[in-house]
Amino acid sequence: MNIFQLTEQIILGERRAIARGISLVENESPQALELLQLLFPKTGNAYRIGITGPPGAGKSTITNKLALHYSNQFSEANKNKKVAIIAVDPTSPFTGGALLGDRVRMTDVEMNDNVFIRSMASRGSLGGLSKKTKEAADIFDAAGFDIILMETVGVGQSELDIVSAADTTVVVLVPESGDSIQAMKAGLMEIADFFVLNKSDRPGAEQAVMSIKTVLGLATRYAQHTEETWIPDVVSTIGNEGKGIDKVAEMIAKHRTSLERTNQLTNKRSERIEERIRELVEEQLHKNFWNDAREKILRNEIEFVLSHKRTPYDVAVELVKNV
Amino acid sequence: MNIFQLTEQIILGERRAIARGISLVENESPQALELLQLLFPKTGNAYRIGITGPPGAGKSTITNKLALHYSNQFSEANKNKKVAIIAVDPTSPFTGGALLGDRVRMTDVEMNDNVFIRSMASRGSLGGLSKKTKEAADIFDAAGFDIILMETVGVGQSELDIVSAADTTVVVLVPESGDSIQAMKAGLMEIADFFVLNKSDRPGAEQAVMSIKTVLGLATRYAQHTEETWIPDVVSTIGNEGKGIDKVAEMIAKHRTSLERTNQLTNKRSERIEERIRELVEEQLHKNFWNDAREKILRNEIEFVLSHKRTPYDVAVELVKNV
Repeated sequence: MNIFQLTEQIILGERRAIARGISLVENESPQALELLQLLFPKTGNAYRIGITGPPGAGKSTITNKLALHYSNQFSEANKNKKVAIIAVDPTSPFTGGALLGDRVRMTDVEMNDNVFIRSMASRGSLGGLSKKTKEAADIFDAAGFDIILMETVGVGQSELDIVSAADTTVVVLVPESGDSIQAMKAGLMEIADFFVLNKSDRPGAEQAVMSIKTVLGLATRYAQHTEETWIPDVVSTIGNEGKGIDKVAEMIAKHRTSLERTNQLTNKRSERIEERIRELVEEQLHKNFWNDAREKILRNEIEFVLSHKRTPYDVAVELVKNV
Repeated sequence: MNIFQLTEQIILGERRAIARGISLVENESPQALELLQLLFPKTGNAYRIGITGPPGAGKSTITNKLALHYSNQFSEANKNKKVAIIAVDPTSPFTGGALLGDRVRMTDVEMNDNVFIRSMASRGSLGGLSKKTKEAADIFDAAGFDIILMETVGVGQSELDIVSAADTTVVVLVPESGDSIQAMKAGLMEIADFFVLNKSDRPGAEQAVMSIKTVLGLATRYAQHTEETWIPDVVSTIGNEGKGIDKVAEMIAKHRTSLERTNQLTNKRSERIEERIRELVEEQLHKNFWNDAREKILRNEIEFVLSHKRTPYDVAVELVKNV
C-alpha cells in the first residue's frame, strides 16, 4: 500500500490503517513523516486529555472507565463519535511490567466499536517516546477521533513532555499519596488542571482530599484572579467500581469550556505547533550535519581526545565551524 | 573570581570551588562550558559507579554506606584519595519529595573529609539532568576524586542515560521487587553489571535471589562466552546495618578489573567522548540556527499552520533550506 492510500484510509477512520500508521511512527519509519504531513490538514478537531500520576494510583482503570463513559455517551447521542486511548509504557525497566499487566486486564473496553486502544512502548530503543505519542495523537485526530486519552506514568521528563501535549491534564492520586503532597505541590500545581483522588474508599481519603485542597488554596491564594481564572479542584473516585467517573468527565468538560472561552485552547495549540516545528528543524539539522565526512572526522578525533591531545570542545567547534 | 582561578582551585580540590563549579553547570551558566573545557585535560582518572533501582529499594543507603566504606579504606591506606556522591533527584513531581527526605537523613557521611555529596535537582526547568550529572562528574574527576558514585532513581530515560555514563552499574532491588523480575528482565539485563538485593532480612529474600539468578542464567546461557566474559551476579545486603557493603565494593573491584583486562574500560570512555562531542555539536547547531530572523519567521508562520494554510513540515523545511 502506498502512503497516499494509507492516508485516505486513515482519514476514513479504518482501524487497520490507523494501527499501521501508528506502527510507522513507532518504528521511526522514513514514511512516517510523509504520512503525518499528509494527515496534518485533517487534525485539530480532537480534544486531548492527559492522565498521569504515580505508579499504582489506578491511572489505567480511570482511563479505561473514562473511555467507556465517552463510548456509551457517544453511542446514545452521536454514533459517529469516537474515543482513543494512547497508553504510554515508560522506558523504565522497573515499571514496565506492572503497567503491561493492567493493560492486559482492561482490554475489554476495546470491545466497543467506537473505542481504540494503543500502547506505545519504547523498550530497547530509548527516547523519543513523547514525540511518538504526540504523532500517534495526530493520527487519531486526523482519523476523526473526538476524544484522545493519553495515559502516562508520572515519572521522568519525557512523561511531563506528554502532559504539555494535552488540552486538559488530570493527575490521579490515592490516599497513600497524601503525605507527600506538601513536598510535591510545586511540580503538581504546574501540570494538573485538576486532581482525581482514586480509591477514595480507603482509609485516609478524606484527609487526602483536604490536604490537596489546602495546597491548592495556598497555591492560588495570591495568584491574580479574574472571573475567568481556572482554579483546580479535586474529584473523588473509586475507579474499580466506576464511581465518580461521570464527575471526572464533567470536570473535563468544564475545563474545556473555560479554555475555549478564554482563548487558551488556541494558545495551547499554537505552542504545540511551535514545539513541533522546532522538533522538525532540529531533526533536519541533525540529519544534514552528520554526513559521512563529518562522521569520519569524529571517529578519527576520538583517540586524540582519549589521550588528552584535544578536548571534546575543540573537536565540536571544529566540526561546526565549516557548516 | 575569574574562570581560570576557579579552574585552578578545582584542580587543587578546594571544596568551595568544586561546589561553585557544579552550580555553574546546574544553572547552565555560559561560563560552565569554558570551565569544563579547561578542566578536561585533568579528567579520566576517576572510576564512575552508577547506582540505580526502583523507588524505595534503599539506593541512598547503599550509596552512602558504600561511600563510607571507600572513605574509611582511603583514610587507612592513602590519605589523598577521595570519594564523591552525585545524587540525582529526578524531574518527576511524584518522587522528588521522598528522595530529598532520604538525603537529609544521610548527610552524616559528609562529616568525613574525603567525601563530597552533591544533589542534582531539576525541579522547575525540566530536562538536561543527565547531561548536568555527567558534567558534575567531570568536575569531580578533574578535582582528583578517585571514586564517583552516581545515584539515580530507575525511572525515565534521562536516568538510563546516566547509567550509560557509569563504568560499573549496580541495580538495587528488594525482595518485594521479585515478582516483577520476570517481566523486566530484558531492560535490567542491559543496564546491570550486577544486582544488589537489599533488605535481605525480609521475607522472600532467598526466593528473590534465586529468581534473579534464574533470569541471569537464562539470559546468559546462549551468549557467546570466553574466559573473559563478565557474568552478572547478585549480592545480598542489609543496607541500614551496613551488612554486605564490603561485598558490593568487592564486586565493583572485580568488575573494574574485568573491564580493564578486556580493554572495555577504554571502549566505554571512547563512547562517552563520542556522545559528548555529539551533544556539543547539537547545542552549537541549535544556537547558530535560531537567530532573530528565524525566530521571527517561526512566529509569523504559526498562525498559518493553526489555520491549516501550511503544515509544520513545510515550515520546518523552509527554515532549514537556506542554512
